[in-house]
Amino acid sequence: MTLAELETPALLLDRARLESNLARMRAALAPHKVDLRPHLKTAKNVEVARLMTAGWSGAVTVSTLKEADQFFAAGFADILYAVGIAPNKLPHAARLHAAGARLGLIVDSQEAARQVAGFGRDHGVQFPVMIEIDSDGHRAGVRPGDAELLRAIAEALAGGAELAGVMTHGGGSYGATSPQAIADHAELERAGAVGAAMILRESGFACPVVSVGSTPTALFARHLDGVTEVRAGVHCFMDLVMAGLGVCGVQDIAISVLASVIGHRRDEDWLIVDAGWMAMSRDRGTQNQRVDQGYGLVCDAAGNPLDDLVVVSANQEHGIVASRRGAPLDLARFPVGTMLRILPNHACATAAQHGRYQVLENGRPVGEWERFGGW
Amino acid sequence: MTLAELETPALLLDRARLESNLARMRAALAPHKVDLRPHLKTAKNVEVARLMTAGWSGAVTVSTLKEADQFFAAGFADILYAVGIAPNKLPHAARLHAAGARLGLIVDSQEAARQVAGFGRDHGVQFPVMIEIDSDGHRAGVRPGDAELLRAIAEALAGGAELAGVMTHGGGSYGATSPQAIADHAELERAGAVGAAMILRESGFACPVVSVGSTPTALFARHLDGVTEVRAGVHCFMDLVMAGLGVCGVQDIAISVLASVIGHRRDEDWLIVDAGWMAMSRDRGTQNQRVDQGYGLVCDAAGNPLDDLVVVSANQEHGIVASRRGAPLDLARFPVGTMLRILPNHACATAAQHGRYQVLENGRPVGEWERFGGW
Repeated sequence: MTLAELETPALLLDRARLESNLARMRAALAPHKVDLRPHLKTAKNVEVARLMTAGWSGAVTVSTLKEADQFFAAGFADILYAVGIAPNKLPHAARLHAAGARLGLIVDSQEAARQVAGFGRDHGVQFPVMIEIDSDGHRAGVRPGDAELLRAIAEALAGGAELAGVMTHGGGSYGATSPQAIADHAELERAGAVGAAMILRESGFACPVVSVGSTPTALFARHLDGVTEVRAGVHCFMDLVMAGLGVCGVQDIAISVLASVIGHRRDEDWLIVDAGWMAMSRDRGTQNQRVDQGYGLVCDAAGNPLDDLVVVSANQEHGIVASRRGAPLDLARFPVGTMLRILPNHACATAAQHGRYQVLENGRPVGEWERFGGW
Repeated sequence: MTLAELETPALLLDRARLESNLARMRAALAPHKVDLRPHLKTAKNVEVARLMTAGWSGAVTVSTLKEADQFFAAGFADILYAVGIAPNKLPHAARLHAAGARLGLIVDSQEAARQVAGFGRDHGVQFPVMIEIDSDGHRAGVRPGDAELLRAIAEALAGGAELAGVMTHGGGSYGATSPQAIADHAELERAGAVGAAMILRESGFACPVVSVGSTPTALFARHLDGVTEVRAGVHCFMDLVMAGLGVCGVQDIAISVLASVIGHRRDEDWLIVDAGWMAMSRDRGTQNQRVDQGYGLVCDAAGNPLDDLVVVSANQEHGIVASRRGAPLDLARFPVGTMLRILPNHACATAAQHGRYQVLENGRPVGEWERFGGW
């Protein structure tokens, strides 16, 4: 089969780039003597999950209980659901627990801890629970030095859940734009999580797991002393946001959307393609980076970037491709039917718009890997 | 069943609002003596499609061949695929044709017309083809007065396809902010399509169908003389973009995302909810409207808007809810587990993130309607 036989738009996955990205993460973490608990929210696919966990303990991270269901059914038993738990999800979590999953939950308040512990006592289930730490003021979590709250949460869990450890996600690292700044961010993440674990241990609570992570910090951390596991997800595919941060090169991006030229707008030097926001997502993650990639960077069908062509505008099933700097475009190079590959701003968001990957080896489609979505 | 028994996030569909929105469209179009060929790209669901076509001819519009497959299987036979056709999709389109669908295609260039006609001659299939008209300089299409190009396309189709008519989509109407401006836009759409049809007819081509439409122009058109059918889609659900244009009220929006509070950020007066961009989409369609609704307008579980609370920021599975104007928020009103309903900026984009609708009657879930996605 050749690319030309695919119907567009289609989500392509370059297997060699995927494996190279995974090898890079293995090499980066090797000196730190930590486990990798890959985040599967980017891939939502069992084959990719198997490659991401190869050489590690097999522990995984998910962003939905649907992912937990699917990956547990595929043989992954140690699963961290890394979004603060809402009470309406506890019965679902308990079903997974009863089926044999070690399903970890996270909380960042006494209130949530009491709910989990209360449910645990009422239903005879001891969930492993991690306290979420806000190491960088980014979003959710307990401030690392808030000893009183850490202890209060640990006490609220006692008797109804297992305090498994602490976890943090240095989401602020997505704003760091040099290896130095990312490494500083990794240290903030590490120190916050380790410090919180120390407070808990000094207060008499076992806190075996210290979990940190994001793709940038995992790759650029100077050391991870005191950390037991790292979570990262987008490293499998990489994307234009990561390239814009200097975390990878454009040539490392393993997924792209195959699109076709469906028309031209001669007075504007536009190509119209059949990949709009439904195929690319509305993610504009590079908008505030040094290079704004629009809704995606346009390559030829073989994956070579075409000068500065980007998707400048997107409707549901239409994308408008033009020069980023407004340069004239020789439309005759791109007749109707020309196939293009578009690299995504944000791999998680673009992949989520598709039901399958078309896996490429040596530039040829060799099979389909099913994705799932929803909750 | 009650809302409290649903797992969040979940996509809710208020059936009474849906039916009221459909009745409004029927009433608006009744004086114009046109058919409605509803666009099913918003709903992507068979039950909604049946309600949208009730009282009309049963003709429908789709944005993907996957929609064509699904709706044809559900009994809809007259289908317009309203995105310029790429050659790699012609075999798929031919399969639908062979199965008995009247599947219309659109083209806006001689090049595409030659491809469709060539395929038609080679494979013995005469697709009904519409010439796309660019009535408002919005995106794709032939300029209405470009008689030379219109005739050239019609000639290119001859012998290999059936010239079924002309169609235009006044997408520029989404920038019109008063009933007057929308009505002006509807006239631009109407005059462009009817003018192009006249040119073709005067040149000896039958051009039976004159198809126009968008939800705003369909509802506000002063007259539709010469038009035979109207296409509109988002009128079934409405959304905050439509409300921002004055096309509907917030209380008309039929879909919302049910979410749960999972935490608080006390120093910022934030609620953290379990609906991020995966549940809401990244669509920020109200960003440049008079009222920026963030990633969605927040209501209580019964659907009543809560002051000026919006989703101010979104990660994959986390939404941050705060006051739009930065007002302090009494977080104690919203303990962990509180359910909220979030109205979407753009119904097509938000619904696309979900696999099903939870249908509500009198505020209670009465069943699930499956959605599909992909290509």
